[in-house]
Amino acid sequence: MMPKKLSALIADTITSIQPISRDFHARAQVALNRLTKPVGSLGRLEELAAQYVAISQKLPPVMPEPVVFTLAADHGVVREGVSAYPSSVTAQMVMNFLGGGAAINVLAKQVNAMVRVVDMGVESELGNLEGLLSHKIGNGTKNFVDGPAMSHEQANKSIEVGIRLAQDACGNGMGVIGLGEMGIGNTTSSSAIATVMTGQSVATVTGKGTGVDAERYAKKVQVIEQGIQRNGPDPRNPLDVLAKVGGFEIGGLVGLILGGAACRVPVVLDGFITGAAMLLAQALAPQCHDYVIPSHCSAEYGHRCVLEHLGLHPLLDLGLRLGEGTGACLAIGFLQTSLACMRDMATFDSAGVDGVEDSVPEPV
Amino acid sequence: MMPKKLSALIADTITSIQPISRDFHARAQVALNRLTKPVGSLGRLEELAAQYVAISQKLPPVMPEPVVFTLAADHGVVREGVSAYPSSVTAQMVMNFLGGGAAINVLAKQVNAMVRVVDMGVESELGNLEGLLSHKIGNGTKNFVDGPAMSHEQANKSIEVGIRLAQDACGNGMGVIGLGEMGIGNTTSSSAIATVMTGQSVATVTGKGTGVDAERYAKKVQVIEQGIQRNGPDPRNPLDVLAKVGGFEIGGLVGLILGGAACRVPVVLDGFITGAAMLLAQALAPQCHDYVIPSHCSAEYGHRCVLEHLGLHPLLDLGLRLGEGTGACLAIGFLQTSLACMRDMATFDSAGVDGVEDSVPEPV
Repeated sequence: MMPKKLSALIADTITSIQPISRDFHARAQVALNRLTKPVGSLGRLEELAAQYVAISQKLPPVMPEPVVFTLAADHGVVREGVSAYPSSVTAQMVMNFLGGGAAINVLAKQVNAMVRVVDMGVESELGNLEGLLSHKIGNGTKNFVDGPAMSHEQANKSIEVGIRLAQDACGNGMGVIGLGEMGIGNTTSSSAIATVMTGQSVATVTGKGTGVDAERYAKKVQVIEQGIQRNGPDPRNPLDVLAKVGGFEIGGLVGLILGGAACRVPVVLDGFITGAAMLLAQALAPQCHDYVIPSHCSAEYGHRCVLEHLGLHPLLDLGLRLGEGTGACLAIGFLQTSLACMRDMATFDSAGVDGVEDSVPEPV
Repeated sequence: MMPKKLSALIADTITSIQPISRDFHARAQVALNRLTKPVGSLGRLEELAAQYVAISQKLPPVMPEPVVFTLAADHGVVREGVSAYPSSVTAQMVMNFLGGGAAINVLAKQVNAMVRVVDMGVESELGNLEGLLSHKIGNGTKNFVDGPAMSHEQANKSIEVGIRLAQDACGNGMGVIGLGEMGIGNTTSSSAIATVMTGQSVATVTGKGTGVDAERYAKKVQVIEQGIQRNGPDPRNPLDVLAKVGGFEIGGLVGLILGGAACRVPVVLDGFITGAAMLLAQALAPQCHDYVIPSHCSAEYGHRCVLEHLGLHPLLDLGLRLGEGTGACLAIGFLQTSLACMRDMATFDSAGVDGVEDSVPEPV
């Protein structure tokens, strides 16, 4: 019998997550209000800047070095025919990430973010490849229709990998962590997690992934229902949910969220799969909520429902459904822009610009 | 009696606007579908890239040099007490733009866009200032409560300035034009234009601008109703609407839209004021619609209504209400990102990545 409890590293990490600073948040808002623009007129960009200052507790803020982690793993449930692509594509896309030819490489470059590609459990043996971080928990998960996707020990290990990746990144001066993933079948796993954690029906939180037809979609819903019934994941125990219907890369994402928050570094969500990871992370550590930047609402059907459940309002709604960390990069760009405003804009005083005629409070 | 007709330059420019290329649009989509990602999974970024290729008719696309025009002018109607700021702030902000301390300077720098600051009709004499393009049509418009804001001749001239700015920019190799403006009182003028051109009530298209209180807001609505009643602008004649309730910078924006479209260069809208200009431009030349990129939906109340009337779907909804071209810069960044994907991503063939298992058409 495997341990059903969180490992010491995970438990300690959760305990060490502090609330973000209300004081720095207020001071950031005061600084923003002095800039030559109507109060609040940069909208959500101002919110982003204030959140970052409240997390990092530095004012003026330091422009953060961004890193995006693209975690890859395979899913046994793909054998049920739930995806439009074969599992082999996961490894092929890992090679593409390492070669610099994927969307994440291009989008990360636009915001000067480093991309770290991590093998969390790709089915095939990739061997020693330049640039690949190997933290394989297994050669893909088991098919959750037949039993748990992984052991509780593996679930713990996958989260621990994410925590250590975050700790290392923060230790090396990274100031914002973007989440990304690649794993054929992982929308199926994420929908199962979302079903259990939100209490919604499978159909409500299940979309077409990379693009399945109506027949495969029906099969996908049925497979998820079957997997949940077979395994009975306990929504009060996120580790149990991860083990029974999750994935190795999803565990890693949970760890990155917890580890980033513990290191006082903002963590930028990407699409639906990172949303499923956040459902688990927030259930484990509600205080990580304020460290998270929700980048976008994906076209993947269940994402909106997941974000609502999390109480997170996405910055963007562009019909993206690619994953890899692509949406996270766009939000990292906005964070950079908002901090550049704080750093480089003139104040009403310094520019000799008159303020409002009346004392107008925060306009509505 | 001033001429009530469009000048020859404007009429010729309108005639020269060609439809965007359906053929290049289709070819762009084929090229996008070959990239290593599920078909359509970059959502609106793919639409942007395809629109740009259809406009510029080059494939592979050339990364465009961006320029943002920030047009400044004052409004006589400010004397009615419709704004939270005094007219003097327009000139002060022009100095701030020239000094590099405004939000537009920071946001433009993030996307390597040049900012061109244009005096279209600031109240005070700014003289020869380095970096300022002086195309003053007058020292602010007249108060439209008492009669037309400007003559039809001035309206023609302001549009002509915009056309020539666009022609010069395109002649100098600029490949995308962002619209921006600064003018205390110009949300009042824009609401008047929106009322006339959309047929909605004044209250439906009027917001709080830079942040007026409830009393001033009521006054603003009343002043707009009064101005429309006094002048009777003719919605079938956009030049008449511009002359009677418009502004010099708004005329310039109309010209930039028409001129950009005539030069086959995309024009990126900003907030509510540029939306009002687009109402006039689209009424003059419906074919300019496809050349326009709607960057964001502003927090300014009437903007959503204006965009719906125009049939334009904004990329962003971030609660911005600053103007200057700030929202346009964010959208220019997305355009650059989308084109970088077309330029730098691997194809399924080149990366050796398997396609979908079934022949899956455009996923729904």
